[in-house]
Amino acid sequence: MNRQYLFDHYPNVVVTSECFKLHDEIISQIDEGEILVRNHYLSLDPYMRGRMSKAKNYAAGQELNTVMQGGTVGEVVESKHADFKVGDTVICTGGWQLYYRTAPTMDSNHVRKIDVSRIPMSVYLGAAGMPGITAWYGLNKIIKPQSGETLVVSAASGAVGSVVGQLAKQKGCRVIGIAGGPEKCEYVVETLGFDDCIDYKAYPDAETLSHELRQLAPNGVDAYYENVGGYIMDAVLDNLNAFARVAICGLIAGYDGRAIPISNPRAILVARASITGFIISDHMDIWPQALAELAEAVAKGVLIFRESVSVGLESAPDAFIGLLQGHNFGKQLVKLI
Amino acid sequence: MNRQYLFDHYPNVVVTSECFKLHDEIISQIDEGEILVRNHYLSLDPYMRGRMSKAKNYAAGQELNTVMQGGTVGEVVESKHADFKVGDTVICTGGWQLYYRTAPTMDSNHVRKIDVSRIPMSVYLGAAGMPGITAWYGLNKIIKPQSGETLVVSAASGAVGSVVGQLAKQKGCRVIGIAGGPEKCEYVVETLGFDDCIDYKAYPDAETLSHELRQLAPNGVDAYYENVGGYIMDAVLDNLNAFARVAICGLIAGYDGRAIPISNPRAILVARASITGFIISDHMDIWPQALAELAEAVAKGVLIFRESVSVGLESAPDAFIGLLQGHNFGKQLVKLI
Repeated sequence: MNRQYLFDHYPNVVVTSECFKLHDEIISQIDEGEILVRNHYLSLDPYMRGRMSKAKNYAAGQELNTVMQGGTVGEVVESKHADFKVGDTVICTGGWQLYYRTAPTMDSNHVRKIDVSRIPMSVYLGAAGMPGITAWYGLNKIIKPQSGETLVVSAASGAVGSVVGQLAKQKGCRVIGIAGGPEKCEYVVETLGFDDCIDYKAYPDAETLSHELRQLAPNGVDAYYENVGGYIMDAVLDNLNAFARVAICGLIAGYDGRAIPISNPRAILVARASITGFIISDHMDIWPQALAELAEAVAKGVLIFRESVSVGLESAPDAFIGLLQGHNFGKQLVKLI
Repeated sequence: MNRQYLFDHYPNVVVTSECFKLHDEIISQIDEGEILVRNHYLSLDPYMRGRMSKAKNYAAGQELNTVMQGGTVGEVVESKHADFKVGDTVICTGGWQLYYRTAPTMDSNHVRKIDVSRIPMSVYLGAAGMPGITAWYGLNKIIKPQSGETLVVSAASGAVGSVVGQLAKQKGCRVIGIAGGPEKCEYVVETLGFDDCIDYKAYPDAETLSHELRQLAPNGVDAYYENVGGYIMDAVLDNLNAFARVAICGLIAGYDGRAIPISNPRAILVARASITGFIISDHMDIWPQALAELAEAVAKGVLIFRESVSVGLESAPDAFIGLLQGHNFGKQLVKLI
């Protein structure tokens, strides 16, 4: 028996549990060339909100009455495919469900075997997975930080931001995080080793946040890794140095359907800044290098990460709604087994 | 006797003639190493508005009670400098005045001799001057257009936009201009040879302008050269293709002190676009190549330009105010002689 969440309703501005519908189905026999994966962990990510919409997006929207899409790690429990055997640990787009039946093809990497001898399975959904690789790409391929530069990263305690800051520190940058609440800020500085972290909740508008950032970065900001958008972005843009680079990875503040403007685009011109949006799935070619570096850093203990794990498939909707509201602390996972 | 305009008052939102004060002074004897230039043409440019402010800018602000800065072309009428003789034609930052006394130095190019044997002097303030080179840089160094791509340029009939579109056409792009009013649009298509031109005055908001652009570019926009900002930018961002490049040269709509937001920054992420602000004075190294190409194209008649000439120094304030309001048609000059 498989249990899964279907996409049941488009959100009316805010995502609620009514958007999802629990569904049970009998797992039929797999065919030649197929495998059956028992999902152990489901990854919840902000991008999912973007797909729950009919608006133009970089990926196809989630169709109503289909299984909610999402990355999973799990174990092969049945196989009629030459490259996979029962007991293999794999990462795949297994969706919001307990079992994932699929026919892996050589020209796609939607099912990949992972090595769990040195790092836990769940890390392949976080620091050594899509979020970590997203951090790696935006930092190394867009921002290209130089030693001595000042880098700011928003959502600094999150799955992407925490990796961005640690990698930038290793490259000799001064790193300032932005996160929500004193607990997250303390973690960012004390545990992750960032130089500073601003609690944006203490600075409720662009002006006060910009002023605080100026105190911490009196020589300005050379690079900005954006995970959030909204007035946080306005405040950072206001402090950019000449020729600053901004990588836009996510704009979570706009995911609830409200467009959050950039209030002063003139800052882009004044700073002669470059702002580049990117989506990691466009850059699969860097995956092997990035994954190898990140997994090695995790195994060695020089890349620290944190997970926020909710237990049971049935907890997925609330965990996702909490993620959109910033309630998670670290990579949001759902433990399915 | 020299006559000049001093910067007299910071604008209170909108620039008025009260911002400027006419001043007469006796021209004293030039010293060893100096020259005296009789300015023939003064260039009026949107960037001047940005300097009439105490706000952070890429260049030092214009100081009160100093001669209004500006580019000029003119003739050397006195010289005590080995490299310049009476009768030389030069381009310099001669300011809003009839005569410019200066000590040219070898390590600066604030006075350069120009060749007026093939093209008129005034062109060095326009198509073969700072505006033309600004067009050349943003197109060739930021946008890097490929044959077959669709490029949009705002302020298409202006000194920069007209060059952008003609150069892009020569590179095999489909070029859509945006300009204000049917007369400018007709000029852009019929005289400059753009494929299409949208009269933004007929589309008073981002939604209607975006819709019209979609009719003309059903396959989307690959490149955008931005001279304007505001809702025009919103409308174009809405139509960007994946990996589109946007060069921000100017944001004239914000020059009157009002910040014009980018309403939907999510478009940058969805299109994985790169937006780069630039200031041509950062890139003096490309000047010789760009100037040579542009002057040659003008001399051959394959780069068409238009000038809006007001006559007499006393006409400068009104001409500048008109420029900020979009009343000029082509490169705005003041004829001083």
